[in-house]
Amino acid sequence: MKEHRATVSELGERALLERIAARIGAGSNGETWVGDDAAVIVPPGKHVLFTTDVMVEGVDFDLRYSSGADIGWKAVAVNVSDIAAMAGRPSHGVATLSLRPDCEMGFVEAVLDGLLEASRRWSMRLVGGDLSGADEIAISVALLGAAPEGRAVHRSGARPGDALCVTGRLGGAAGGLLVLSRNLDRGNDRLERLAHRHLRPDARVDAGSALAAAGATAMIDLSDGLAVDLGRLCAASGIGCRIDPPTVPVDEDLPALGEDSLRLAIVGGEDFELLAALPRENVDAATAAVEAVGVPLTRIGEVTDEGCWIGDDPLDQWEEQGWEHLRGR
Amino acid sequence: MKEHRATVSELGERALLERIAARIGAGSNGETWVGDDAAVIVPPGKHVLFTTDVMVEGVDFDLRYSSGADIGWKAVAVNVSDIAAMAGRPSHGVATLSLRPDCEMGFVEAVLDGLLEASRRWSMRLVGGDLSGADEIAISVALLGAAPEGRAVHRSGARPGDALCVTGRLGGAAGGLLVLSRNLDRGNDRLERLAHRHLRPDARVDAGSALAAAGATAMIDLSDGLAVDLGRLCAASGIGCRIDPPTVPVDEDLPALGEDSLRLAIVGGEDFELLAALPRENVDAATAAVEAVGVPLTRIGEVTDEGCWIGDDPLDQWEEQGWEHLRGR
Repeated sequence: MKEHRATVSELGERALLERIAARIGAGSNGETWVGDDAAVIVPPGKHVLFTTDVMVEGVDFDLRYSSGADIGWKAVAVNVSDIAAMAGRPSHGVATLSLRPDCEMGFVEAVLDGLLEASRRWSMRLVGGDLSGADEIAISVALLGAAPEGRAVHRSGARPGDALCVTGRLGGAAGGLLVLSRNLDRGNDRLERLAHRHLRPDARVDAGSALAAAGATAMIDLSDGLAVDLGRLCAASGIGCRIDPPTVPVDEDLPALGEDSLRLAIVGGEDFELLAALPRENVDAATAAVEAVGVPLTRIGEVTDEGCWIGDDPLDQWEEQGWEHLRGR
Repeated sequence: MKEHRATVSELGERALLERIAARIGAGSNGETWVGDDAAVIVPPGKHVLFTTDVMVEGVDFDLRYSSGADIGWKAVAVNVSDIAAMAGRPSHGVATLSLRPDCEMGFVEAVLDGLLEASRRWSMRLVGGDLSGADEIAISVALLGAAPEGRAVHRSGARPGDALCVTGRLGGAAGGLLVLSRNLDRGNDRLERLAHRHLRPDARVDAGSALAAAGATAMIDLSDGLAVDLGRLCAASGIGCRIDPPTVPVDEDLPALGEDSLRLAIVGGEDFELLAALPRENVDAATAAVEAVGVPLTRIGEVTDEGCWIGDDPLDQWEEQGWEHLRGR
């Protein structure tokens, strides 16, 4: 218990690295993980996916709401979501952790708990990392994944006439952030579930694979909100879109918040659902395939030659309300 | 010029990502780099090396001395050094950049300059990354590399009787940090060279390969100083060592500083030279092979059954003076 309260500056880097190494393990199946200058791994295929994301205290998470375990989980989940959006499967990750000298060992152990829990959830291995001191806590994860058997699904392949579909329901994570930041009653099951969606996002690995197998022409994960990420898919594919707002699947717990649920579903970030373009004739089969892995799929619009519209509004009116990482706080 | 002075919060994430994507490129040879949820790459072998390092403002670099380009260069170099210490060759990297809202675009371009210059230097590709806002600037790089044809060289293979050798000369980077932090005369060529060694470290990729080919039983790169990293190699190999201080190759410019040069060579961090254990009978061949790639190799001691000594002093007396990342500032 006492060690749990010791700060990282009291423990020192060596002791901390030893704890972390013991948690992660030295390797198996011809692989060598922590404890050396680099991990030695077997890449998960002839083509692999490689991505990275960083989360910074006060920008990407708030320690008033997020536990160490939440932060560790989310640092993995956001990267897994990027791999899922290419229709891949995560395999190996490395993490860096920037810690304030006054961070307690219990917090660091909790971050590790979250990193390892998420790694198990998605059948991947955390194989190495690095520590630094800092004035604000930050965590970066870099992740490798297996590309799908055929080809990875890019943002750039959508064609006019394709249907646009999203997995799951939208706006829940943004609603959860409101629940947490407003310190709303956490005894309410619906608000509790919203908060959980912000703190412990899922990632749609099986759904991404199912969508690729069903002929998805383009995919992107919804990290910065439907409006912003739809804009990215359209720009990468050089196409337009028309979204039918009443069809956008709104998180079922959002109405409990008393906000404009549809707006949160369109501009709210961090749902980590997938937006996919599909040939129209494949939508029924894709829906069945995605539902077979336990995830709803909803058709919300179509790809056009040019001009991006959400109902009667140009997309950029909505994009401006989306999440921007560099605009200050 | 005006855009050069624009801050990242004025430019916004989208504009910044577009600039970065234009600098890095979309990919070649069947690979897809920036512009999607993840890069698609061809791994550099059946076994690959995977490592990551993070650098934080005020801890790992100081903007009073380091330019954006220096920081970008070093973020790559420290990771390349980890790959070199396994006898590998770097192939693909991803980077995360945490930026204060008031960072100017010129600074971000300079960081990119440094990242790309170092990537060219070591014939690797930067294939993706992520941005976040922050109150302090930080940069993480995760790097893949090709494992050597035979086996990667681990820290753990040193055997009693092996010789201990180091590449290059030691203490220069620590001396350079003193030059910079004391604002010493930069007109002096020797002090200038020391400063350069701190700001623009090299990494010993060719020397690492040559050492592996010459039968190195264990290797580690000297990031935290000879004393600390020697301790790590001994602990990983479960052996002892005896270092002969007069043989430690001191940076030739260090005497200009008027400090205890040998002490800086033993405890000073960030030289990014390689420490290798070698069968004694291989030392001459290894020296010739490493010198053939333009790097000196010096025998500084030997591996023993137990007990680590630098001259008449136990190693841990020296280790305590080495660099610790978590002890505060």
